[in-house]
Amino acid sequence: MKPIDGGICAVRGVHAGGIKPGKNGLGVITASGNSAGVFTRNKVIAAPLIVTRERITEKGHLSAVIMNSGNANAFTGEEGIDDSVYMAKLLADKLDIPDKQVGVASTGVIGKKLDTDWLDENIDEVLNSLSNSPDGSQSAARSIMTTDTFAKESAIELNNGIRIGGIAKGSGMIEPNMGTMLAFIYTDAVLDSKSLNKSLKAGVDKSFNMIVVDGDTSTNDMVLLTATGESGVETDINDFQEGLDFVLTDLAKMIARDGEGATKLIEVNVDGAFTYDDARLVAKSIVRSPLVKTAIFGHDPNWGRIIAAIGYSGANIRQDKISLAFSDGKNTVELVKNGRIVTNDRNSQDALKNIMEKKDIKILINLGMDNKSATAWGCDLTYDYIKINAEYTT
Amino acid sequence: MKPIDGGICAVRGVHAGGIKPGKNGLGVITASGNSAGVFTRNKVIAAPLIVTRERITEKGHLSAVIMNSGNANAFTGEEGIDDSVYMAKLLADKLDIPDKQVGVASTGVIGKKLDTDWLDENIDEVLNSLSNSPDGSQSAARSIMTTDTFAKESAIELNNGIRIGGIAKGSGMIEPNMGTMLAFIYTDAVLDSKSLNKSLKAGVDKSFNMIVVDGDTSTNDMVLLTATGESGVETDINDFQEGLDFVLTDLAKMIARDGEGATKLIEVNVDGAFTYDDARLVAKSIVRSPLVKTAIFGHDPNWGRIIAAIGYSGANIRQDKISLAFSDGKNTVELVKNGRIVTNDRNSQDALKNIMEKKDIKILINLGMDNKSATAWGCDLTYDYIKINAEYTT
Repeated sequence: MKPIDGGICAVRGVHAGGIKPGKNGLGVITASGNSAGVFTRNKVIAAPLIVTRERITEKGHLSAVIMNSGNANAFTGEEGIDDSVYMAKLLADKLDIPDKQVGVASTGVIGKKLDTDWLDENIDEVLNSLSNSPDGSQSAARSIMTTDTFAKESAIELNNGIRIGGIAKGSGMIEPNMGTMLAFIYTDAVLDSKSLNKSLKAGVDKSFNMIVVDGDTSTNDMVLLTATGESGVETDINDFQEGLDFVLTDLAKMIARDGEGATKLIEVNVDGAFTYDDARLVAKSIVRSPLVKTAIFGHDPNWGRIIAAIGYSGANIRQDKISLAFSDGKNTVELVKNGRIVTNDRNSQDALKNIMEKKDIKILINLGMDNKSATAWGCDLTYDYIKINAEYTT
Repeated sequence: MKPIDGGICAVRGVHAGGIKPGKNGLGVITASGNSAGVFTRNKVIAAPLIVTRERITEKGHLSAVIMNSGNANAFTGEEGIDDSVYMAKLLADKLDIPDKQVGVASTGVIGKKLDTDWLDENIDEVLNSLSNSPDGSQSAARSIMTTDTFAKESAIELNNGIRIGGIAKGSGMIEPNMGTMLAFIYTDAVLDSKSLNKSLKAGVDKSFNMIVVDGDTSTNDMVLLTATGESGVETDINDFQEGLDFVLTDLAKMIARDGEGATKLIEVNVDGAFTYDDARLVAKSIVRSPLVKTAIFGHDPNWGRIIAAIGYSGANIRQDKISLAFSDGKNTVELVKNGRIVTNDRNSQDALKNIMEKKDIKILINLGMDNKSATAWGCDLTYDYIKINAEYTT
């Protein structure tokens, strides 16, 4: 397995393009094949998800996706559904494919009617920009950005030659079960929609469902996976899962890193848990804690707040078994060992100070109960998070 | 029932005092009587709570409480327990009362050994300051302040003459199930510890357990209730509950208002829920949402974020039944009615703008499912929250 360039357009059979002239963006991806989807668990579910979920559940096949930013088409009632259906039909008619094979995605402000005139006026420009070059992937990724500060793409090639690529958007409102998070994943492996569904659910649980920016879950989150089959390779499903996990995790980490106002990526590795659920609870509890997030922003290795977050996580823990360290991936400094505070010498204190100034901070927890593990990602909580969200008006 | 001055010292049989010369504070309350307690559900539970909980569970009787700020005596192992026991004994010896009748409370930094020398040096000054005047209550309330910006006291007198008074501290790390939150409640009613326990649990569920500042739950939260019986009145338990609820809610709202960096108190009233739990889930989900909290800070009536928080609350809801309004207690502007966006005229828009500039903002939700209701309190999320928590170092 090796990382490659090109995002979704690295995958055979995928064309993409998009525009983002101002607050509103419009993007299109064409790629025909078996498909699977994972959707928000928010009970207020946006119109495009209702439409797309029904199509995927019925047929498990998509030929294209149309997506817009600036308006989430959420909490828009029957009219919203009509607008999502209209949006899909607009693309279907242009491409001369069945409506039912078009997925629809939207992100942006909630509760505002979609401006379908704007879509009408701009769809041709987007279709003219469609390409299977890296630029195509990049412009599609850009078209769905809202408060994102960079376009998010990832692609790999497995040893058996198949490729998996994805684009994603998301920065605020992330967690859990995905928050204003859209991801479109493609592979040229030969796979049926049942296998795709199973792999996607498993992969999302380890990646997008393990990132936290501010703990809000959006009405519009969706991950779609389509297999064009154009490599002709019927891959081993475990190999595929490994590759898929890589792409999903890579994108998830980009979203965590790009958390609104974030200056740091926080990775929490929990090991030694009694159950896998315990490990997940602890990892997410830490990465969700506003007090931990502000401490990291302040370069403060405030392990007391981390211990408190472990304590209220709901997981099965014993405080006299907990070990805790900070790491930048190279150097690691242990602060708590089996429930006892570690007295660090001057060298270790300096090393810790250096770690806290890095952009990527790892918090390593061993619960000392058993051997289950989990990893979660998040970001620090900063002045700019407040600025962005106090000033982004409906 | 009428509010009265004097905090805990309004209650017959209560003397209090305290000092707070710098980061560390020390306070004492003397009041002998049947007692009850509610303690943090964080699995990392601090030494003073372990000691006090055991005493209350065994005897249900306290004669005094000793409390300190600056050091939480949490995650301090066996030595921490010894220090809490020592702290209680220090007071018991001075007052010539049994150790087991002394409650201990601590708040502050986690994982640091308690400075018992400092307690030794300062206990006499605190005991000399003990008084049953309003100053006594005030100085005890001040002695346990950490990031609090004002001392929190409340007292009332019921029509039957009994009094209930309380002091509390807390501003960051609040929620749910109480976060670095201490409250000491006294009454001069004649009540046994079983009745006190039942009333306290019921009251805390409607007050302290319904406030959210940042969603972190501390290792040190505790509410103690002691009945001196010195009014000689055996009160009707429902009357007592009503009075207790008033004092607990009054203190809880003060804590929410004093949330770290807060500029506004947010009250969320949820009505029309299918179950009481649903109403609680929705109210707390809204008041916990960082996106709602930042919007309120930015004077933005961003109802879309509120709808999203309702959707992911886990409660049984239907988006086409939701109604939503903002209010300042005098004027109310409805934004969503039965799942449909309300088109407001210029006058209503102006009224809404005025509401958003107030210090007390009410969010009124009707879920339209049935008739259960709940209220939660919180505060906005501001630059100063970040400042306080990025700079408060272990």
